[in-house]
Amino acid sequence: MITIAVDAAGGDHAPAEAVKGAAAALKNPGIKLVLLGNEAAVRAELDRIPGCDKTRLEVVSAPEIITNDEHPAAAIKAKKNSSIVVGLNMVRRGEAAAFVSAGSTGALLTGATVIVGRIKGVDRPVLGTALPNAKGFTFLADSGANVDAKPQYLAQYAQMGAVYAEHILGVANPRVGLVNIGAEQGKGNELTKEAYPLLEAAGVNFTGNVEARDIPLGAVDVAVCDAFVGNVILKYTEGMAGAMLGMIKKELMSSALSKLGAMLAKNAFRRLKKSFDYSEVGGAPFLGLRGLVVKAHGSSESRAFEAAIEKCALFAERDIVDKTERLLAKTAGETQAAE
Amino acid sequence: MITIAVDAAGGDHAPAEAVKGAAAALKNPGIKLVLLGNEAAVRAELDRIPGCDKTRLEVVSAPEIITNDEHPAAAIKAKKNSSIVVGLNMVRRGEAAAFVSAGSTGALLTGATVIVGRIKGVDRPVLGTALPNAKGFTFLADSGANVDAKPQYLAQYAQMGAVYAEHILGVANPRVGLVNIGAEQGKGNELTKEAYPLLEAAGVNFTGNVEARDIPLGAVDVAVCDAFVGNVILKYTEGMAGAMLGMIKKELMSSALSKLGAMLAKNAFRRLKKSFDYSEVGGAPFLGLRGLVVKAHGSSESRAFEAAIEKCALFAERDIVDKTERLLAKTAGETQAAE
Repeated sequence: MITIAVDAAGGDHAPAEAVKGAAAALKNPGIKLVLLGNEAAVRAELDRIPGCDKTRLEVVSAPEIITNDEHPAAAIKAKKNSSIVVGLNMVRRGEAAAFVSAGSTGALLTGATVIVGRIKGVDRPVLGTALPNAKGFTFLADSGANVDAKPQYLAQYAQMGAVYAEHILGVANPRVGLVNIGAEQGKGNELTKEAYPLLEAAGVNFTGNVEARDIPLGAVDVAVCDAFVGNVILKYTEGMAGAMLGMIKKELMSSALSKLGAMLAKNAFRRLKKSFDYSEVGGAPFLGLRGLVVKAHGSSESRAFEAAIEKCALFAERDIVDKTERLLAKTAGETQAAE
Repeated sequence: MITIAVDAAGGDHAPAEAVKGAAAALKNPGIKLVLLGNEAAVRAELDRIPGCDKTRLEVVSAPEIITNDEHPAAAIKAKKNSSIVVGLNMVRRGEAAAFVSAGSTGALLTGATVIVGRIKGVDRPVLGTALPNAKGFTFLADSGANVDAKPQYLAQYAQMGAVYAEHILGVANPRVGLVNIGAEQGKGNELTKEAYPLLEAAGVNFTGNVEARDIPLGAVDVAVCDAFVGNVILKYTEGMAGAMLGMIKKELMSSALSKLGAMLAKNAFRRLKKSFDYSEVGGAPFLGLRGLVVKAHGSSESRAFEAAIEKCALFAERDIVDKTERLLAKTAGETQAAE
């Protein structure tokens, strides 16, 4: 039985959506869930769900709340009874294989790094995001953890990302690209120039540099970059999608003929808008820890929590910690042998 | 009379489009043009233009060609009679106020930095690009010159970009933003954290950090970043626009009704596609030199050359070198006074 801790106090719709998502996720018979938050509120919410089987569902009181405005490190230190700190401690002690939270990103990432131990060989855990592209998704790592990265971090992101993409996202032999300003080796800034040979030696299907123009076309399955560049790509995707759909609307309203066209194509536009909304995808995994920590979007609804919990179950079932550790050890050994 | 040098040997359509663009630009009575390249080919092209007034048009032989595959620094050194080296030397000697080229970007930027002198106070010249947004354009600097930037470079980009946006692009009191991963001061990587106070003191209309999601919505007129981030934004814009238009097409073809809608809205889509093509805008200025060097897109047609030449004329008329130097000197003085 795999135990997964779920933050029922974080996010815009707490505790209702987290609780509903957890109840739905129990259809997987191999998991047990621990809901963290205001115990009375969580139990009240559970009572509202018809036919909810509570045999594999525990509620643990974690009444303190960390808000988005608090300084992450200080809040983690001060609020030992917050759902975030309690959940991360469960992962640290091995009482839970994973923790899902829609609470403060800063507190969750800082807390995870401080409280949950890292996989051997990992310098920095990495936040990944499944970024929509024309064909499906690009797993973007780092999308938010370390804004100033060292070359070896990028090589480790490639390894953690490749294992996750293959075993959790189901991409066979995922193509890993280094986000860069030119396709040829030798292009780039100091960071990417030094990272290139490390990615070549990382034991992944490294396909070389990937230029930003080729990411939305689906040129790679895993795109590796520092968190500054990753954040720019993530936010720019959101901005461009919004701006373009706005411009399309304006263009279409400019003539009676195109206005009619727009009406006829209304559903197609709605689907398109949805397909570029990365918050729909349900949770960004924080990789490199001895357990999975998933940051769910603040506005997550029950379906997103359910999807995140499903990923946590897969993560434990498929021994991702072990697989990652072995890949890191293999190349660390090779690097030492070559020295 | 303002003299502008034009590379008639660079770009995909050389010399025809450069020569046609130059001939059209002569409708401005205040300019004189010097065409550089294979003299016979340029003259043959000129003879094909009906009623071309050659009194303000000189042809100078510069027969050597620098290709995109050559190492920029080596090519600049070896090919003294290339159109790029001859043109840059004209700017250096004050024989031309500006130089427009659609040739090798690397050779042009390297050559400009080595051959043409910098404005006093400028550490690194910067490449700017007018990036399309939902309301017009964002002047993105640096979009390709220095991949590893120091904080003071970013402050100087802000100053050069603000002067250019105000006096050449016609934006009154342009809003200058620092591309960053959060809106509040204190967010960012080492580079942007250190650059923030320098931009505050730069004597421009600094509106603080700008997140990537707000750039396509037109939140700032000048967006400041290092060339790695700038290149990612530029190329990602291209990739996203292409991917989204492809997805729209696919969505619209999915039902008979939406297919009809697409047909009715065909012209609207064509306009939209054009509005996100930054190569249409006609040339990226390389700022911070004692003269203007404009990199025209390799696929530039005559209209793009004409537009670039018009900007060169404005640049000289409005004493941009002088205005930039004064702004840089003013804040350099203030910084010294504050120390």
